[in-house]
Amino acid sequence: MLNIAIIGAGRIGKVHALAVFNNPNTHISHIYDIYAPAANELAQQYNAIAISSLDEIFNNDEIHAVIIASTTDTHLDLLLRSVKANKPVLCEKPLDLDINKITKALPELKLYQTPVQIGFNRRFDPNHRKLKESIVNGDIGNLEQLIITSRDPSLPDLNYVKQSGGIFRDMIIHDFDMARYITGEDIIEVQAFGSCLVDKKLEELDDLDSVMIILKSESERLIHINGSRHCSYGYDQRIEAFGSSGMLMSNNPTQTSVTHYTSHLNGSADKLYSFFLDRYENAYKFQLENFANNQHNLSPSLSDGVKAQQLAEAAIKSLKDKAIVTL
Amino acid sequence: MLNIAIIGAGRIGKVHALAVFNNPNTHISHIYDIYAPAANELAQQYNAIAISSLDEIFNNDEIHAVIIASTTDTHLDLLLRSVKANKPVLCEKPLDLDINKITKALPELKLYQTPVQIGFNRRFDPNHRKLKESIVNGDIGNLEQLIITSRDPSLPDLNYVKQSGGIFRDMIIHDFDMARYITGEDIIEVQAFGSCLVDKKLEELDDLDSVMIILKSESERLIHINGSRHCSYGYDQRIEAFGSSGMLMSNNPTQTSVTHYTSHLNGSADKLYSFFLDRYENAYKFQLENFANNQHNLSPSLSDGVKAQQLAEAAIKSLKDKAIVTL
Amino acid sequence: MLNIAIIGAGRIGKVHALAVFNNPNTHISHIYDIYAPAANELAQQYNAIAISSLDEIFNNDEIHAVIIASTTDTHLDLLLRSVKANKPVLCEKPLDLDINKITKALPELKLYQTPVQIGFNRRFDPNHRKLKESIVNGDIGNLEQLIITSRDPSLPDLNYVKQSGGIFRDMIIHDFDMARYITGEDIIEVQAFGSCLVDKKLEELDDLDSVMIILKSESERLIHINGSRHCSYGYDQRIEAFGSSGMLMSNNPTQTSVTHYTSHLNGSADKLYSFFLDRYENAYKFQLENFANNQHNLSPSLSDGVKAQQLAEAAIKSLKDKAIVTL
Amino acid sequence: MLNIAIIGAGRIGKVHALAVFNNPNTHISHIYDIYAPAANELAQQYNAIAISSLDEIFNNDEIHAVIIASTTDTHLDLLLRSVKANKPVLCEKPLDLDINKITKALPELKLYQTPVQIGFNRRFDPNHRKLKESIVNGDIGNLEQLIITSRDPSLPDLNYVKQSGGIFRDMIIHDFDMARYITGEDIIEVQAFGSCLVDKKLEELDDLDSVMIILKSESERLIHINGSRHCSYGYDQRIEAFGSSGMLMSNNPTQTSVTHYTSHLNGSADKLYSFFLDRYENAYKFQLENFANNQHNLSPSLSDGVKAQQLAEAAIKSLKDKAIVTL
Repeated sequence: MLNIAIIGAGRIGKVHALAVFNNPNTHISHIYDIYAPAANELAQQYNAIAISSLDEIFNNDEIHAVIIASTTDTHLDLLLRSVKANKPVLCEKPLDLDINKITKALPELKLYQTPVQIGFNRRFDPNHRKLKESIVNGDIGNLEQLIITSRDPSLPDLNYVKQSGGIFRDMIIHDFDMARYITGEDIIEVQAFGSCLVDKKLEELDDLDSVMIILKSESERLIHINGSRHCSYGYDQRIEAFGSSGMLMSNNPTQTSVTHYTSHLNGSADKLYSFFLDRYENAYKFQLENFANNQHNLSPSLSDGVKAQQLAEAAIKSLKDKAIVTL
Repeated sequence: MLNIAIIGAGRIGKVHALAVFNNPNTHISHIYDIYAPAANELAQQYNAIAISSLDEIFNNDEIHAVIIASTTDTHLDLLLRSVKANKPVLCEKPLDLDINKITKALPELKLYQTPVQIGFNRRFDPNHRKLKESIVNGDIGNLEQLIITSRDPSLPDLNYVKQSGGIFRDMIIHDFDMARYITGEDIIEVQAFGSCLVDKKLEELDDLDSVMIILKSESERLIHINGSRHCSYGYDQRIEAFGSSGMLMSNNPTQTSVTHYTSHLNGSADKLYSFFLDRYENAYKFQLENFANNQHNLSPSLSDGVKAQQLAEAAIKSLKDKAIVTL
Repeated sequence: MLNIAIIGAGRIGKVHALAVFNNPNTHISHIYDIYAPAANELAQQYNAIAISSLDEIFNNDEIHAVIIASTTDTHLDLLLRSVKANKPVLCEKPLDLDINKITKALPELKLYQTPVQIGFNRRFDPNHRKLKESIVNGDIGNLEQLIITSRDPSLPDLNYVKQSGGIFRDMIIHDFDMARYITGEDIIEVQAFGSCLVDKKLEELDDLDSVMIILKSESERLIHINGSRHCSYGYDQRIEAFGSSGMLMSNNPTQTSVTHYTSHLNGSADKLYSFFLDRYENAYKFQLENFANNQHNLSPSLSDGVKAQQLAEAAIKSLKDKAIVTL
Repeated sequence: MLNIAIIGAGRIGKVHALAVFNNPNTHISHIYDIYAPAANELAQQYNAIAISSLDEIFNNDEIHAVIIASTTDTHLDLLLRSVKANKPVLCEKPLDLDINKITKALPELKLYQTPVQIGFNRRFDPNHRKLKESIVNGDIGNLEQLIITSRDPSLPDLNYVKQSGGIFRDMIIHDFDMARYITGEDIIEVQAFGSCLVDKKLEELDDLDSVMIILKSESERLIHINGSRHCSYGYDQRIEAFGSSGMLMSNNPTQTSVTHYTSHLNGSADKLYSFFLDRYENAYKFQLENFANNQHNLSPSLSDGVKAQQLAEAAIKSLKDKAIVTL
């Protein structure tokens, strides 16, 4: 049984708690949150121990691993403390909003060789994963083009936007990671376009709601990402992989397999999932399973986390300079 | 060039006229209708000769073939005149509403060995035909079960119902023919169920709007037909063929390949076709092509026409007696 | 926390154990199996108590409810002991293979007014349930016709067939229950057809592999069931509901939402589920949830269990007599 | 009846001839080809007059309109002669491979005010057109993003590639036109990426087989085009339009509506169309209908033809300079 301490009892912390609880091989041992009542409540729900000091985690031998689900600004520091304490850690993305801080922290983080897994949960979505496995299996021959569609259901609160780091660091970072995951390659060129079509207030916050990006990978594969901060029909998350002998689509799963016909509906399916919490529920489950079962060879790695972030920075620069950024 | 005379310038006569006109190897030479102005109008449209006497057809050597698209009560007589005159004939279904008249007429009709094709147009629908060819090709192994769905878009006018011969002779007769066409076998048992759920006035006319039938074929394959005289979402015409190594569905084609997503639509397709005139437009085209190209071995044959009608009679008897009818 | 004792640690017992374990409000307290090692193993896996005598269940006040997942011949007796002990019980179908024994046991079973839920798990499948709720919601107007497709993935072992009671009591009984569940009505007429097309050895065992049934409900709705004991492409379980203003299909869910295109695949979806254990995993989960949450008004009820069985008997009689059976 | 002369009796000339023949309001009066036997053969097939001198077209009052389907290098000259002769003209794309020649010819072409329609047939595809009409109808609110997929079935002959002007001028020009047609706007920014992944010989010819483009329109809508010169599963031609209140997809139509299930196929549809001749057969029909019915307000116009070509030039420059081209 793997005893796991969860740091952060907010929205994402709860998602992780459920995954740990449902896994027959893991156990929620301790929960910490800077806001003590939140830790208490979650701990009570799962019969775990709420703690008020982080030291109780890093000094406790009965805690075998750590999940970092606190606010972004604490990630790097907690990561460092975890790896120093030799506790394998599953850390939520992004590592930090400031790429310079990440770069600076990296050498020390790598020094300790403690296993680290970055929370790019989409790699564990059964649909996207099936597409990846099918490509590896040769089902479409040589992969040539990739098209990633990423549309959030609705504009976030403007206060959230302010501290989110912008659409590339906050939202499209997942898609940058998927581009690397599916191609199995690093990206060498980035060109980003963006518009503010949904809400002009985003522009005042130096952000965008509509983006299109082209990436080129090491072996000159072409990748397109289109993203929007709103989507009237649900959470739209698709991947299309085009290869020399075929094509694969990871389509949107629907809530049920029921279709409806009336005078104005012709085979309308059931609704898409509403957001990442329901859409990627299984992804969180399999992410935790991966963390629990592969403690010595975790993936996506720290390096994957850094590279996705570099792509976000490159996109921001490309947009600002109206130019291709070469990596 | 095959010169064809068309008898009947009503709704179906016009469908045939268009098919003959568009076929590069056939020519509308003469048109007759008991109501002369209808013949005149259609003849003018296609640069054909309107005639006022049927003798002008059967005695004219320049007319190579005949299409019978007049009212049902005239079919048997015109068929006989055509085969006597040695003119290959495409005759609309049903042969007659009275099975006894048909049985009585058969020996003479067969005597002349003139090619006859019965207007079961659905055999020529590219979708249903593809399903049939795929079965023949072995794509689902041994055919075991067949499910035929047949729903007209809306209740016909009650005056039409009165003289239609009822839902089995008028509408389901096509599906009986499809059962024989797809299985390639004769039917040995018939059990029909029916209800009047849409409009109780049909009951007063001794008719039904909702039917379900089970047929058993010579080799004990099972066939189900479900039919309704109304359908809110269009003209619903599907066939499902289940076999030892697979299954085929001939689904409803849609007017375009566009799908629509909104907060209440999730991948809703474009509308189905509205009725047989648009749904089976291509079927009429290929039916005519078959008639023009296979003059010496026409199919569906006179015998196919008789057998479909016998199945309609069996269904009526089964419903009345609440018992299986064995053929 | 509801303490549940599970009787039977075989294939179905394990499915129930998982559902009880995953439900936050229920607890597996005791497990019994006539073969003690099976009970021991399952008890160990879930930290439950293996017991060697049924008395330990019915006399134990700390056991709040019972799940009967033992062999069919024990169902009636265990049901009676449960209701006598005033322990709400979830009992696997069928109640018994002999309808006479059921009829005889009913008065006493009903005497005790202990809540009973029969294990027609499909009523809790999220897809079929959505279809049902959508009908109740008026989404297709007045329900007129129902078409139920039920194809098992492969022929069962002949030894299983021998003691299964035949295709109607063993397999189609679920579909009879669905017919009653979806229409919300009792059935008044049954006509069954059957063939032995897949394996003639079934015929020697007085069984069939291919069946088609028509049912008529109280308000004259028509229901068709088609069933096969084998299906090359997976476990095929669909329901189509046709009503006055629309149509609903509960289609087969697929293992993932990935589609594949190659020179010989055009949008081929991922595989169907392989059998009821994976296809209806969620149904078992929600069935248990219903059992745990609605202890005083359980459904499907004992009466539902009896009526489905009566329909199986009616189908067998209809097939034998080649006649409609009226209920 | 509109008498039309067709210049060019090759592959595209034949497509136009069929469309003119099948339209009840148009007539193929004359056919010219630089290779006289080709003109003779096509003329014979449609009972038209084969001519050996272009003067016979431009000086003949009984010819009401002209279709230019000859080689690209003759387009500008023939266009000029048509408009000078006051004969409405349907001219195949591209206007010329050299944008400078086009720019130079434009003033004189416009001088005569003779109606000109450019052969961007895809605007008349019923599927793409339905998508466009649905957007205009407000079905997705404000259009925000457009994704165009354009994959030819197989690499053209290298000799063809040599004189084709390259993938942007030859193939993607249609998609540039669709971007303008669907948005109803001009394009202000172009960024193109390209790779040679399929056949390195294309690189030697200074061409590509795989491209991705982002366009920005006047109102900052974002458009993505992905193109490939080969596609294992047929001719892949899709458009996805994303708007403030919905999304529309113009999917690939299939040859029939039949789907197939086996142990390795799960709902595989029938094949896509193989190339533009079958895929866009209806588009050519409706293109001709538009030409015949709207002689005084033809669209796509000469200006549309020029603008699509300018986008092709911009894409070529963007790729060469690795920079956004602003128009």
